[in-house]
Amino acid sequence: MKQSMMLIPTLREVPAEAEAASHQLLLRSGFIRQVAAGIYTYLPLGWRVMEKIKRIIRQEMNAIGAHELHMPAMQPTELWKLSGRYEVYEAELIRFEDRHKREFALGPTHEEVITALIGEEVSSYRELPLVLYQIQTKYRDESRPRYGLLRGREFLMKDAYSFHMDQEGLDHTFTSMYHAYHSIFKRCGLQFRAVEADSGAIGGDGETFEFMALAEIGEDTIVSCDQCGYAANMERAESREGKGVYGQVKEGDHCLKCEGSLTIIRGIELGHIFKLGTKYTEAMQINLLTNEGTQQHPIMGCYGIGISRLLAAIIEQNHDQQGIVWPAHVAPADVHLITVSMQDQVQLDLSEQLYRQLTESGVEVLWDNRMERPGVKFNDADLIGIPIRLIVGKQAEQGRIEYRERLSQDTILMTLDEIVERVTNNYSV
Amino acid sequence: MKQSMMLIPTLREVPAEAEAASHQLLLRSGFIRQVAAGIYTYLPLGWRVMEKIKRIIRQEMNAIGAHELHMPAMQPTELWKLSGRYEVYEAELIRFEDRHKREFALGPTHEEVITALIGEEVSSYRELPLVLYQIQTKYRDESRPRYGLLRGREFLMKDAYSFHMDQEGLDHTFTSMYHAYHSIFKRCGLQFRAVEADSGAIGGDGETFEFMALAEIGEDTIVSCDQCGYAANMERAESREGKGVYGQVKEGDHCLKCEGSLTIIRGIELGHIFKLGTKYTEAMQINLLTNEGTQQHPIMGCYGIGISRLLAAIIEQNHDQQGIVWPAHVAPADVHLITVSMQDQVQLDLSEQLYRQLTESGVEVLWDNRMERPGVKFNDADLIGIPIRLIVGKQAEQGRIEYRERLSQDTILMTLDEIVERVTNNYSV
Repeated sequence: MKQSMMLIPTLREVPAEAEAASHQLLLRSGFIRQVAAGIYTYLPLGWRVMEKIKRIIRQEMNAIGAHELHMPAMQPTELWKLSGRYEVYEAELIRFEDRHKREFALGPTHEEVITALIGEEVSSYRELPLVLYQIQTKYRDESRPRYGLLRGREFLMKDAYSFHMDQEGLDHTFTSMYHAYHSIFKRCGLQFRAVEADSGAIGGDGETFEFMALAEIGEDTIVSCDQCGYAANMERAESREGKGVYGQVKEGDHCLKCEGSLTIIRGIELGHIFKLGTKYTEAMQINLLTNEGTQQHPIMGCYGIGISRLLAAIIEQNHDQQGIVWPAHVAPADVHLITVSMQDQVQLDLSEQLYRQLTESGVEVLWDNRMERPGVKFNDADLIGIPIRLIVGKQAEQGRIEYRERLSQDTILMTLDEIVERVTNNYSV
Repeated sequence: MKQSMMLIPTLREVPAEAEAASHQLLLRSGFIRQVAAGIYTYLPLGWRVMEKIKRIIRQEMNAIGAHELHMPAMQPTELWKLSGRYEVYEAELIRFEDRHKREFALGPTHEEVITALIGEEVSSYRELPLVLYQIQTKYRDESRPRYGLLRGREFLMKDAYSFHMDQEGLDHTFTSMYHAYHSIFKRCGLQFRAVEADSGAIGGDGETFEFMALAEIGEDTIVSCDQCGYAANMERAESREGKGVYGQVKEGDHCLKCEGSLTIIRGIELGHIFKLGTKYTEAMQINLLTNEGTQQHPIMGCYGIGISRLLAAIIEQNHDQQGIVWPAHVAPADVHLITVSMQDQVQLDLSEQLYRQLTESGVEVLWDNRMERPGVKFNDADLIGIPIRLIVGKQAEQGRIEYRERLSQDTILMTLDEIVERVTNNYSV
């Protein structure tokens, strides 16, 4: 990728409208731009990161036997009236009529659509279990969209749904999802906790976990035990001093499960796994044949990840004064190649050779081949935050290239062959 | 992929609501289901084909230096009033107000959003040309959605936009797109023609081509010369007998450009490339600095492909009485492995070995491991239309597997090693 041909509109100043570090850096590094409150365009570098995250999620979902499908955003509101959620969602649910005066909603989630699908297409226990997921655009008309991608009105989600005839089947998939979520967030380079939680508007009385990225900007409050690993969302948290009443926990209270003391930390909700039970299949009157010849409502689980928000959470945890510091697996490119002076033929030739060799080895290279001053290039590279930077400057005459990691900022002088060997060992496909 | 764990609800009967062959087969093979008129869920096999098509499009777009971005579906209608298209679109443009009474539209295309973006982020000729594309869900409230994915209300499109300071730059990108479109449709296994066309509601007075899949069900009429390669949409077609007036051509009329005679055929519009000129940049008052220090409206091209419709067009051209016959590059899997009797331990063992070896070699295998009668499995396989079928049946005792191609239906008995060698030579990654 040649930077001269890309739209990467970096900003020197911190935009006044952005409070959160991730929002500031997404704007400053030219990753996103706002179209309306809570509604964004992902520019090429931002979209590359989204694609990396999507690939990780797909790999982990496929590995546990989930199959991808794709449901529409436009949903007839009849389905929402059937499930009982039409009233629950109020102004957050975007509604409109089509040209024939039929009412539609833009889906914030897809429990209704998928439950109706299963009701139509599945008739017997023999066809279950089924685990289905999609990566799809969601809509929620937030009263106060804010913090950039952390709370938007149009955003990308992975939502998965599972259908089972028995609790054991649901428990099995729920556990698989729990572990898959750990893998996903770990591969995305996140510090996170899985916490016990309330089920909220999605409903169901069963077990639920929220996956929280630890971050001061987070809108959620997490209670965490320093000894036994107990962690819960504040609404769901208990302590000895709180006398077992949910939500009455203070910093330093004692854990109900061990001798430890409790800490209160802030988190960004990345994902959520629910045991929904029969809430939807009962409301929508879905019955399947059991192996005893009777009829039964299948039981459901649902499993979401906010992908746009995940992208922002990665930045909240991975940045410094100069800009973003991408974890390797989700960086918009593996290597940022910077040619200090494009007018210098030696530098240009060496850069071209390096660009070609790395690209042919499967390494993703962003080449800053712009006619800009070195200071501008270095500042942009710090902002953009690609893990490895290769600088072709005056040392090119001696066949030397600067190798620098974004995180450490240490510089090593290396030959082209040494660099190609080092980088391809890490990044080749 | 094990078929027992997937949602592939095949239908024996032709659904009464489906007229077009592609619509019938997409429903019968369990690839899509309707949620509302013109609005569909892509089931796992259907979505796999969509992903294959998307990958081909991305490769061809990236190869000509286009960069992927992602714009929102929700667009403030102020932008549409600026461009003058707010009135043009009438009832087809889905409009609604958010909770703060601000009006939005669900984008049928993105000229307004991207032109506004370029106006905000680009200031000088030095930053052009830019070629940007997205693969994104579009909305058009058709008065008569029909033929399944051929004319839907929510559908997937690739839309690309290019920005230039001079006509030569636009011409260059337009030509690159013209060739990239040929590659895309060819790799998708389509018979198509590029035809001269009118520019319609998108606007602009410049050159435009439509890419038409040849198919009887097509809603467009194409005039084509049997000798010189001249081809045009009927509204844009001329003949000697029609005295050079657009649209007055009859079968057998004579070509204006050579001695040939004209044929009238039907086509499905797959894609469209336009030279838009300054229609949008002028209306939206976008000015960039030229290399002479003056200001100028950049000139634009736009380039669309209807991906959902493309999927349907492939089926219109590639099916027989029994079902779909997928071209190799867009098939939902490379191989359909069918175990005739899952209770037969020899068949089961040989199937498992074959499944594992092929999968490990990078071949995509759909394994029909269901407890179903052989007739059901064979009929479903014909419907689903995966190019190569491997049948593990009674001959398994002699270590033999039936190898059959969907197109020819010829059967060859082969050993496991022979099959693995043959298939991996064609399909390994």
